[in-house]
Amino acid sequence: MRIGELSARTGVPAATIKYYVREGLLSGGERRSHNQVEYGEEHVRRLRLVRAMVEVGSVPIAKVREVLAEIEEPDRDLDSTLGVASRALSQHRVPAEEPAAEDLELARAIVRGRGWHSIDPDHGYLWTLADAIGRLRELGLADMVDVTGEYARAAEIVAEFDLSLLANRKERDEILEAMVIGTVLGDAIFEALRRIAQVEVSSRVFQRGQRKQSGAEQNLSTVDR
Amino acid sequence: MRIGELSARTGVPAATIKYYVREGLLSGGERRSHNQVEYGEEHVRRLRLVRAMVEVGSVPIAKVREVLAEIEEPDRDLDSTLGVASRALSQHRVPAEEPAAEDLELARAIVRGRGWHSIDPDHGYLWTLADAIGRLRELGLADMVDVTGEYARAAEIVAEFDLSLLANRKERDEILEAMVIGTVLGDAIFEALRRIAQVEVSSRVFQRGQRKQSGAEQNLSTVDR
Repeated sequence: MRIGELSARTGVPAATIKYYVREGLLSGGERRSHNQVEYGEEHVRRLRLVRAMVEVGSVPIAKVREVLAEIEEPDRDLDSTLGVASRALSQHRVPAEEPAAEDLELARAIVRGRGWHSIDPDHGYLWTLADAIGRLRELGLADMVDVTGEYARAAEIVAEFDLSLLANRKERDEILEAMVIGTVLGDAIFEALRRIAQVEVSSRVFQRGQRKQSGAEQNLSTVDR
Repeated sequence: MRIGELSARTGVPAATIKYYVREGLLSGGERRSHNQVEYGEEHVRRLRLVRAMVEVGSVPIAKVREVLAEIEEPDRDLDSTLGVASRALSQHRVPAEEPAAEDLELARAIVRGRGWHSIDPDHGYLWTLADAIGRLRELGLADMVDVTGEYARAAEIVAEFDLSLLANRKERDEILEAMVIGTVLGDAIFEALRRIAQVEVSSRVFQRGQRKQSGAEQNLSTVDR
């Protein structure tokens, strides 16, 4: 197909497609004549993947390139590829300095509390977690540290759903693509649902539901569905 | 205190403090003499709040200014202030165009499925959710749409924890500050825990735990703790 059709099918303007080719996010099409370049189905799929990262995930171009390079590296094993891609797609930085010992211990206690025994005690995301805990403490908001593990319980529900989707897939490329999209769109979906749930729970807590509906009690009775 | 002490107590370099004052994120200190400016405890607290948004949440300066303006607007009611701040702190954009009807219907069905009856059917985050659903469909990954509502169930657990923390607070400023910090650090904490949980669940699914430990069964037996 010509660039016009590729643009129409993906919703990406032709100028942006050319920019992605220059930036190495997309292979160039096959040149047929002086002013005709032919693109295939693999370009449609790749462009949608890039668009999901850039538009939904607000992933910077340099990181998109990094993730795509990981996907295309045939020799790397699946597990470490997933790890590298997961880190590249993180919105939140792993802190450069080791967090305070007490914060790291608290982060490890949350993980142990869930019975997560496969986690390296120096895993990068444990540092991210410890860093966030340290900031809450600094801000005098130590009561916001989720020592009860409710966040971890919720994260496990999400991770089990995520992994069940990967387990349905067999080809390496399929698994990696699903993982990248699942990470980016999953973060967006969870963020939206967390905000929506806050509105809902807030209306129960502050009993504002009563004015609009037959009563807050009705809401409360549906919590555990 | 002098700017040097303010810098030491918050970990923010003096040049950055001056930049934040110029950008209106922090009120200037009290000028005592030609070259001495005095800062107080309110500057320490505000700087930590700004730092949490900028460093942990990667919130752009213009958005930080928007959130702070909301916090300082005394006439606005708490509920709408929380809404504006929540939107400003979103990492993911609300789509500019109305999503496809089928995607929006699916998003509403997920919300109804949880018994969330207080949500406006045109809530901005329902659009974000529908947009993500549409992209999964476009990418041929419709099976990734969480029709079973596992993400929503997890989001409700997190939102109930979040709201319980706000309910502990009485002063308007306290509630808003906790909400801003809880949103930014809560996103970071959940993101880290989701990635950690993926490693854990992945090691169970792919049985890699067996090499390091006494058996994957041991992990499985602790799932529901």
